[in-house]
Amino acid sequence: MTPKTKASLLLSALLLALAPVVASAQEARAPAQGARHNLMPVPVSVQLLRARMKVEPTFRVAVQGHSDARLLAGVGRAVARLERRTGMEFARGLAEIPAAANLVIQCKGPGLETPALGEDESYVLEVSERQAFVNSQTVTGALRGLETFLQLVTADGAGYYVPEARVGDRPRFPWRGLLIDVGRHFEPLEVIKRNLDAMAAVKLNVLHWHLSDDQGFRVESRVFPKLHQMGSDGLFYTQDQIREIIEYARQRGIRVLPEFDMPGHSTSWLVGHPELASAPGPYTIERRFGVFDASMDPTREETYAFLDRFIGEMAALFPDAYLHIGGDEVTGKHWRLSPAIQAFMKAKGFADKQALQAYFNGRVSRLVRKHGKKMVGWDEILHPDLPRDTVIQSWRGPQSLAEGAKKGYPGILSNGYYLDHLMPASTHYLVDPLPEGHDLTAEESARVLGGEACMWAEYVGPETIDGRLWPRMAAVAERFWSPREVRDVEDMYRRLEAVSVQLEELGLTHQTGPAKMLRRLAGGEQVGPLETLVGALRPTFFGREKVRPVTQQTPLVRLVDAARPDSRAAREFAHAVGGLVDDAPRFLSRRERVRAFLEEWRAVQPAVRVMADRSPLMRDAVPLADDLAAMSAAGLEAVQYLSAGGAPPLGWREERLALLDRVARTPSEVDFPVLPAFRQLVHAAAEQPQLRSLTAAEWSARVRALAAEKK
Amino acid sequence: MTPKTKASLLLSALLLALAPVVASAQEARAPAQGARHNLMPVPVSVQLLRARMKVEPTFRVAVQGHSDARLLAGVGRAVARLERRTGMEFARGLAEIPAAANLVIQCKGPGLETPALGEDESYVLEVSERQAFVNSQTVTGALRGLETFLQLVTADGAGYYVPEARVGDRPRFPWRGLLIDVGRHFEPLEVIKRNLDAMAAVKLNVLHWHLSDDQGFRVESRVFPKLHQMGSDGLFYTQDQIREIIEYARQRGIRVLPEFDMPGHSTSWLVGHPELASAPGPYTIERRFGVFDASMDPTREETYAFLDRFIGEMAALFPDAYLHIGGDEVTGKHWRLSPAIQAFMKAKGFADKQALQAYFNGRVSRLVRKHGKKMVGWDEILHPDLPRDTVIQSWRGPQSLAEGAKKGYPGILSNGYYLDHLMPASTHYLVDPLPEGHDLTAEESARVLGGEACMWAEYVGPETIDGRLWPRMAAVAERFWSPREVRDVEDMYRRLEAVSVQLEELGLTHQTGPAKMLRRLAGGEQVGPLETLVGALRPTFFGREKVRPVTQQTPLVRLVDAARPDSRAAREFAHAVGGLVDDAPRFLSRRERVRAFLEEWRAVQPAVRVMADRSPLMRDAVPLADDLAAMSAAGLEAVQYLSAGGAPPLGWREERLALLDRVARTPSEVDFPVLPAFRQLVHAAAEQPQLRSLTAAEWSARVRALAAEKK
Repeated sequence: MTPKTKASLLLSALLLALAPVVASAQEARAPAQGARHNLMPVPVSVQLLRARMKVEPTFRVAVQGHSDARLLAGVGRAVARLERRTGMEFARGLAEIPAAANLVIQCKGPGLETPALGEDESYVLEVSERQAFVNSQTVTGALRGLETFLQLVTADGAGYYVPEARVGDRPRFPWRGLLIDVGRHFEPLEVIKRNLDAMAAVKLNVLHWHLSDDQGFRVESRVFPKLHQMGSDGLFYTQDQIREIIEYARQRGIRVLPEFDMPGHSTSWLVGHPELASAPGPYTIERRFGVFDASMDPTREETYAFLDRFIGEMAALFPDAYLHIGGDEVTGKHWRLSPAIQAFMKAKGFADKQALQAYFNGRVSRLVRKHGKKMVGWDEILHPDLPRDTVIQSWRGPQSLAEGAKKGYPGILSNGYYLDHLMPASTHYLVDPLPEGHDLTAEESARVLGGEACMWAEYVGPETIDGRLWPRMAAVAERFWSPREVRDVEDMYRRLEAVSVQLEELGLTHQTGPAKMLRRLAGGEQVGPLETLVGALRPTFFGREKVRPVTQQTPLVRLVDAARPDSRAAREFAHAVGGLVDDAPRFLSRRERVRAFLEEWRAVQPAVRVMADRSPLMRDAVPLADDLAAMSAAGLEAVQYLSAGGAPPLGWREERLALLDRVARTPSEVDFPVLPAFRQLVHAAAEQPQLRSLTAAEWSARVRALAAEKK
Repeated sequence: MTPKTKASLLLSALLLALAPVVASAQEARAPAQGARHNLMPVPVSVQLLRARMKVEPTFRVAVQGHSDARLLAGVGRAVARLERRTGMEFARGLAEIPAAANLVIQCKGPGLETPALGEDESYVLEVSERQAFVNSQTVTGALRGLETFLQLVTADGAGYYVPEARVGDRPRFPWRGLLIDVGRHFEPLEVIKRNLDAMAAVKLNVLHWHLSDDQGFRVESRVFPKLHQMGSDGLFYTQDQIREIIEYARQRGIRVLPEFDMPGHSTSWLVGHPELASAPGPYTIERRFGVFDASMDPTREETYAFLDRFIGEMAALFPDAYLHIGGDEVTGKHWRLSPAIQAFMKAKGFADKQALQAYFNGRVSRLVRKHGKKMVGWDEILHPDLPRDTVIQSWRGPQSLAEGAKKGYPGILSNGYYLDHLMPASTHYLVDPLPEGHDLTAEESARVLGGEACMWAEYVGPETIDGRLWPRMAAVAERFWSPREVRDVEDMYRRLEAVSVQLEELGLTHQTGPAKMLRRLAGGEQVGPLETLVGALRPTFFGREKVRPVTQQTPLVRLVDAARPDSRAAREFAHAVGGLVDDAPRFLSRRERVRAFLEEWRAVQPAVRVMADRSPLMRDAVPLADDLAAMSAAGLEAVQYLSAGGAPPLGWREERLALLDRVARTPSEVDFPVLPAFRQLVHAAAEQPQLRSLTAAEWSARVRALAAEKK
């Protein structure tokens, strides 16, 4: 490749070529010259070539074609990040002459003033030895291209550079969101802002702001001030702050979708407005978590008069074309208990609560429409009477989503993307809103608009939310943006680590938060053994309340809050054990690595016991350290048997498996993602005598099968 | 001690006894039962006894006597911190009946609405097995007592508790401040807020806000909007934000002292108002650091008309009784170059720039007084014509301060407390505003109001300021609050570590920031070797610009920015080497510890080289890792000679010392605080043959003397 001054011709050609070019995960890992990139989400097409554009203190940007305040602000943010990453001080301001710039933004037009569903977000990024060009139709497209440019910046002994590249890119789905629940735990403005920055970095475009729930009503209502005054403990956003967030999001090409959950999940409304309720008040803000009976009364005209004014106020405050009315999890108990509501249902001929809720949804839908918005709601709202532009958000699953699409409703998938469930990134990553082999027609497929990850906030607060979202959210963002074929888990984790460090540039605390919490747990700066223990654990969602109840007011400062959903140690240990098992009959490969893990884990026990004596808050750690030590001792025995080639005594396997089973079954707020590898080790040691009658490959497959077999 | 329900009698007695009781550092370390406490600043008197008041989920607070919103908010913050530290969820709200409360606040009256110099900040804290009482005359006193209570919370295997205690406390100095320079680098609101929280935690009571300098004018002026519009790059505080900070500080018993530096250090004013300048404009915001010639014109009446209106505006905005006019570092060059100014000086009979500046100060002083404030300024302003209530802030030293006091001027010390110079905490800690053996009369001594630590912001920004201030600031706060006799450095470091972890509760990033910067430097999550290297280093202030120039726009993201002023490794290594040397002739004590340090440091070299190849930003680390490895190799040789008892070959000592000298002399942004211990090791090994003719003590003294001798 030779440097190009008139790159636009080539760029147009690339734009045309965009649609059919689909990069496979293989390509993502190994492009032309064998170089790997750290792009996340992986673009539709990437070609990396041999030359390099150096990044030096003379680095300048030019904007050619359309320019506006939003684009210039975006360029300014990108340049500032590049300065901080390289430590270089660039000249202030844009280059006057594009030919003198290192990065040229060629933006055709402004695009939409306020981001909206379906806006053109495509871009082409072309890097030659001399210059880089971002070409886009809209400012939003340019912002997306700038993020890719920043991710392409690389370094080696010779300095910082951007590899010669041709990237053609556009999103697979137009709706790529993150739901943040601020009802259950409030999140201050700066938390929302830094998460918007992070969303923009991985090309997400919808902040779904879950603004009310049983545990809190979080928006100032000037029409009904008792809503926020009595329903929020003073933890709410003023309308000015809401506008500030909307503008912050707009600057980054992100829509803000407000959700006001109704008729259920509405206790906090009823504190100030018990007249809306299906059962007599008074109500207080709910402190526990779960599904509660409090519900609006769908039978009274006053309810709709109230909602009419309320929706009118919020429709004016939030510019997005959509408004989310929740609609999930109505128990119906208060409806059953109310003679008036029962009489209403009888008069209307409603057979069940579903029918009554459908009536409610229909009424609310007309109010939403009256105030110029389209409605979004959870699965439950799906009903033939609703207008066809109602968007169904599926917490039930891709099947439910597909059904909606067949009935003509657009939908987005959230099932499988509940990040608050604390599964590893790999689990969420492989969930697809439109999986291979689906049976939808092209028209129906087009109704699958994308997806949203959810951060429900039973167990997250301002200190922990970043770590519960990131870096995993970036893997989900890739699912929403990149071609379906991009699904190599190992490569995802490799890129995720690079992206994770870059995300810290934006102020995220996903790395610093857990470290800080461990120091607090330990009551001191020396936390090494605790860090090792926590590194072998994973927090659980469903296990948490089995151990101790949690309310909105419970401090989220325990071991479980400091543990991370993705355990790097578990991945590396599994890899090492796998290598050892595959190396039958010699068992040399990775043996020292496995042993090192086991010895470190075993050594943690006494140190953690001493620390826990100083800090009752970390007493939870003691039985976990004991279990890890016991498992590690078993693991070391296994390695010893494998090394020596001798058979373990009768009953050894059963006893060790019983230990692992006991650990797996122990109720805890955390679990051990390292367990499967331990199981492999035990079976490998015990299966050794049979080795002679099998090939190494057969034997290794047998060990893996045995390990997988047991729960 | 038996539990007391009527503690007030005893508390009154304690209050009376306060003055004469002075705890020595020895007591701080080893009170009655040999228990140590982590209090910082050390109170005037502390008695720790045997019993314990348990902290359990039933913990409640009662407020008896005076109560107001400020006190209740302070109690609320303390309870929230205790919840997060213990993980317990306490019942909401105050206990109705004091007898049912664990902590009872007995506050006599509100004290001052807005904190002011000389307010009663004393308190008595009495903890029995059943209850704790904080007794105070004012709300501010109660807030101070609450902080001591929180620092007393302890834990062991049995749970959280507060030891039975009697604490009587009041500050040594009434003016205990921290200067934050937001002129050179702007600091966002949340940075100021979290630092106010931290200040309150260590009982500081003045935020000296350096709001203007050559590099920025940081306050919205409605009278002269060009000041902030043209002098700040958009980085300024609105008047609403200023009020928000003043209120935030007031809630915590902290005064806010605004400084507007004049007539020098004023380039940023002159950008919008060149008519104020001594030399013709136009002016632009200064980006470099240093002392510049730009200066207001002290000869024109228009200057004073401007300052009259400006000071009037700021005097109304800031409620504090004092206003700081800077007054430091006027070069006088523009005065010399201006014929008009020269003519004015001649007409007035002013012999030099000092006389002209004295005239300026006199005029400004009358304006400050006209608007109801007392004036504060740096040493330079000291002049017999100034009113006797003018406060002199000494950057020159205790001598200068004492001179002022003798002339009748109150003063505060800042010399020795320049935290931006990045000396270890121990250095600042031992500086005393009123050192033992001073020659001031009681009356003159009373004019020494206290001190202020300074955080000048050439090389600090929002990401690094917390780590440049904390935890060292806590040691200086102790100097300002605690009796002069409290000056045991080792014990200070012990308590500082506990306080440092607690300070993170308040959102400070002094621990998380450096870790994050190392990940960015390394471009990845695995930073172990880099952490080890940085742990052996100390950033320098004066060395920085010798290596590369820094302007306001230089990203502060290099190795030097991630290094900490206090090196724990250096302290521990010195301790280990000292123990080894003192253990002559056996050299067994701590030998393995010394060897472990040296081997870890030597091992850093190859890893750092690999990392630097991926990240040019951390190339600085390579020669440092090389030097540390070379020194460690020399150290290992020394340990080997000491262990084997053999003499090193001729020239060994000279060569090794030459290496250490070369490292010490190498210009760098960082230096090696581990060097003195290396020097001891080398001399110890080389002196070994002479050992026979000396006692072990004589020999060890000789080694230390030799090591200290060489620069």
